[in-house]
Amino acid sequence: MAQVTNKDASVPTADLMDRIVSLCKRRGFIYQSSEIYGGINGFWDYGPLGVELKNNIKMLWWHAMTRLRDDVVGLDATIIMHPRIWKASGHVDTFSDPMVDCKKCKGRFRADQLAETPCPLKPSKTVAECDGEKTEPRPFNLMFKTTVGPIESEENVAYLRPETAQAIFAQFKTVLETARQKVPFGIAQIGKAFRNEVTPRNYTFRSREFEQMELEFFIRPDEAVEAIAGRVLEPDEIDLTDPRPDTTAWGWKAWLKYWVAQRMRWYESLGLPRAKLVEYWQKPDELAHYAKACVDILFKFPFGKRDASGELIGEELEGIAARSDFDLSQHQRFSGRPMTVFDEELKNAWGKLAPDKQSALRSRYRQSRLDYYLKAGEPPEKARALADADAEAFTKGYYIPHVIEPSAGVDRLALALICNAYDEDTAPDEHGNPEPRVVLRFQPRVAPVKVAVFPLLKNRPALVQKAREVYELLRPHMKAFYDDAGAIGRRYRRQDEAGTPYCVTIDFETLGEKAPELRDTVTVRERDSMRQDRVKISELVGYLLEKIR
Amino acid sequence: MAQVTNKDASVPTADLMDRIVSLCKRRGFIYQSSEIYGGINGFWDYGPLGVELKNNIKMLWWHAMTRLRDDVVGLDATIIMHPRIWKASGHVDTFSDPMVDCKKCKGRFRADQLAETPCPLKPSKTVAECDGEKTEPRPFNLMFKTTVGPIESEENVAYLRPETAQAIFAQFKTVLETARQKVPFGIAQIGKAFRNEVTPRNYTFRSREFEQMELEFFIRPDEAVEAIAGRVLEPDEIDLTDPRPDTTAWGWKAWLKYWVAQRMRWYESLGLPRAKLVEYWQKPDELAHYAKACVDILFKFPFGKRDASGELIGEELEGIAARSDFDLSQHQRFSGRPMTVFDEELKNAWGKLAPDKQSALRSRYRQSRLDYYLKAGEPPEKARALADADAEAFTKGYYIPHVIEPSAGVDRLALALICNAYDEDTAPDEHGNPEPRVVLRFQPRVAPVKVAVFPLLKNRPALVQKAREVYELLRPHMKAFYDDAGAIGRRYRRQDEAGTPYCVTIDFETLGEKAPELRDTVTVRERDSMRQDRVKISELVGYLLEKIR
Repeated sequence: MAQVTNKDASVPTADLMDRIVSLCKRRGFIYQSSEIYGGINGFWDYGPLGVELKNNIKMLWWHAMTRLRDDVVGLDATIIMHPRIWKASGHVDTFSDPMVDCKKCKGRFRADQLAETPCPLKPSKTVAECDGEKTEPRPFNLMFKTTVGPIESEENVAYLRPETAQAIFAQFKTVLETARQKVPFGIAQIGKAFRNEVTPRNYTFRSREFEQMELEFFIRPDEAVEAIAGRVLEPDEIDLTDPRPDTTAWGWKAWLKYWVAQRMRWYESLGLPRAKLVEYWQKPDELAHYAKACVDILFKFPFGKRDASGELIGEELEGIAARSDFDLSQHQRFSGRPMTVFDEELKNAWGKLAPDKQSALRSRYRQSRLDYYLKAGEPPEKARALADADAEAFTKGYYIPHVIEPSAGVDRLALALICNAYDEDTAPDEHGNPEPRVVLRFQPRVAPVKVAVFPLLKNRPALVQKAREVYELLRPHMKAFYDDAGAIGRRYRRQDEAGTPYCVTIDFETLGEKAPELRDTVTVRERDSMRQDRVKISELVGYLLEKIR
Repeated sequence: MAQVTNKDASVPTADLMDRIVSLCKRRGFIYQSSEIYGGINGFWDYGPLGVELKNNIKMLWWHAMTRLRDDVVGLDATIIMHPRIWKASGHVDTFSDPMVDCKKCKGRFRADQLAETPCPLKPSKTVAECDGEKTEPRPFNLMFKTTVGPIESEENVAYLRPETAQAIFAQFKTVLETARQKVPFGIAQIGKAFRNEVTPRNYTFRSREFEQMELEFFIRPDEAVEAIAGRVLEPDEIDLTDPRPDTTAWGWKAWLKYWVAQRMRWYESLGLPRAKLVEYWQKPDELAHYAKACVDILFKFPFGKRDASGELIGEELEGIAARSDFDLSQHQRFSGRPMTVFDEELKNAWGKLAPDKQSALRSRYRQSRLDYYLKAGEPPEKARALADADAEAFTKGYYIPHVIEPSAGVDRLALALICNAYDEDTAPDEHGNPEPRVVLRFQPRVAPVKVAVFPLLKNRPALVQKAREVYELLRPHMKAFYDDAGAIGRRYRRQDEAGTPYCVTIDFETLGEKAPELRDTVTVRERDSMRQDRVKISELVGYLLEKIR
């Protein structure tokens, strides 16, 4: 086996990816869904190590986003929701790819991919080249459809959510009323989402069923910030190193910058190096219609788009979008339920403003609401009336919050962590001779198994008994694995492949057979340096906990 | 508010349930899905406190079932799988309710519920009584259907899984090959499942989208146990108090008994009292066609079926089924992929058996396989040939494992924990006068919030600063909540309703203003006894961790 390292840009990335995929299957990270039935395109299962990796990711995100913050609470909504939610969000009308049908082969193809798709009847030609007559492009909605209740009819159609975000918008007021929060605050959710992708690809990267971690962070409109704080800070005026910043004068641009920094920091805390992460500010023509700005956090996977010089430019791990008040406004219009909040500070501040300031802020707020209503398709007269009413309410302290949305994918991050961790080097075998090894250099916090426990020999009851004791001691505190099969070197190799950061070996020294001062000490071997420490069993839990947290 | 306690069987349970539902909504445990759009029948969302409760349940199950066991590994499979899985499992053909259509009102009704369903046109009459002409009953499949890929056709139909179990069977061999396990061992999975129930009811108890925690525990067929151990132990011969029992001679009846005991113990460890739990052994005519036996663990909710004397008999939290080798055998037949394992101990033991013993065991094993093939619909001749081949393979150490399946519902357990915890009593108000209080007496391990931190007064910066310090100290270790709003008595009441077991108050004693020896101590108030302890801040983390674990 040649040495391959993903630290080295000269290695062909396709080959690297093959090795990663093979390891994932061999060691139980990722399987093809329904493999015994030939699989199902775009669906992937997680095996024993994969589940633990995913659980660690979700737990770390949940802790960072909710437990360690005062201003974010959690939600867990259903995958199937009322279909009007997807009408309000725009997904029913616009979440689609243009498709053409070929009248000859009866196939259906993405209109923008005809020139790269082989013809099913004559694979040597592309669909663009073949002589089958094609229909005009028609939109194909990417939401999975089903029907709820015993009657299959149009009115009972429902969708599998294509994103978790809309559930948060739909429950915004309910959460606000029960959670003792006020704007600015956020609602976080982790859960499955589904997109009927026409061409799932890049392993688990673009699949049809995936898991999202989304935060909707609700903030004041800039006009309210200005009324309260006197001005809106420019992004470069805010101090991102302050753990408890005064955010009173933060507008959406400051909050966007804050969340991008927070999220980048979080990815780095999981072991993704800054050099493989890209902060990509979308250009105006790339933005979704509802977004004022969007920053993608990209990771340089061993696949994906390349720049002119052939360098990988990275694929999206997370998008952080400034979605304005678009979504809540849509749900207010479609449900008829108010999505406004009352902001006492705004009301108090408003009364103290000079009349020309009042007039300027009111006018700006009215314009932003008018823009929304017109974009939403309201007739101009009605739009003006609605914007007038909103502007009037604004002066009394009422508004629809704006939102910053950091939206991350669990599966993409799991894949990024595996790709980043994958490495090959050499390690000494039983006789001290160097042999190649595959090692996953996971940051200990994300590693599926934190520690493996080995008795040096399987056939010495005293060693086995002691090893079991150590295993039972560690197990309540961290995911541990016991292995007594085969030579110790082979056991190390197996744990290296699984990414286990520490291996504890119970040997004759532990039993006090060689030197009394080593009794009840064990060897702790670190995965990357392969360094071995001698640690007292009584200090082992603390020693390891400090390293894996 | 009258005093209502669910400890007291004389309280009308309907009233109790109303109060529980109201509390769940008011405090953010459970909301109706898509509420702003009028809701969607059979779907429920979990609010900030509800998510934490559910996460605790899932984490505790995962720890008990995987981390603390050597013989169980995890899996996380997709909700949408290859449709043949549901053909093999029997769900496509038999997972249905019989329905009739009324030609007059165009409604569709469960054939077995006509006499209890009001007519949509004339609600004073039932559907059975109305004069609309009805169709013959037709099976209505309870699986949600969708199509995968761009073409909506029969061959692209897929289903939302109605249970997580089948994914485990489908991936059985893949997991076995990667996880270094051998029979007996189990595969555990937590995840969403969907059933298009005709009549969702009892709040979240019977909903259309729910979360399951399922273990498939694979064991040797009894004939293999007998070949290896000489005999199969009767269930009453096994010692359930032994933490590491020798299971060599355990047949399926012993394993079933073991898992029922394990699961009952787990529910008790979450605070559900033995008196409200029922171990119900299904009668032969109640068993699913694949099951040899099934034990339901019931909980006495404040709703549901009653016995002849009017006592609640309990509703199902979990079913523990002995499913034989039915599922794996079906997947072997439908996929053409072998589901057999090779058992070296069986092979070794077999060679040492007396010929008449060999012949008896072989014949019994052959008969059980023949029964399966005939039940599965194979023609008798083919069934005999297949059974012969299986019996021959058995003598060489090969068999399809049998399975014990403890299958629990996350949502049902969450509801049981809330119902069990709900209580009303009296507590002193600000002036020492008794006032009614609602309290959720959660076992601390399941409580959504473990500790609340209060500065005695909001307007004393020294108190607030100290309280924030204590809060930051606790937060990395447990879910904590900071509250400085309103009188301290009101803050206690709010935490009582949320089920928070401990409240920590920072007062003037903490600052050392009253007695120097009380400096840097806090008041810890326990929810149920309302007793207050004085604890040093330096010892607070340990003090609380010991109580909440």
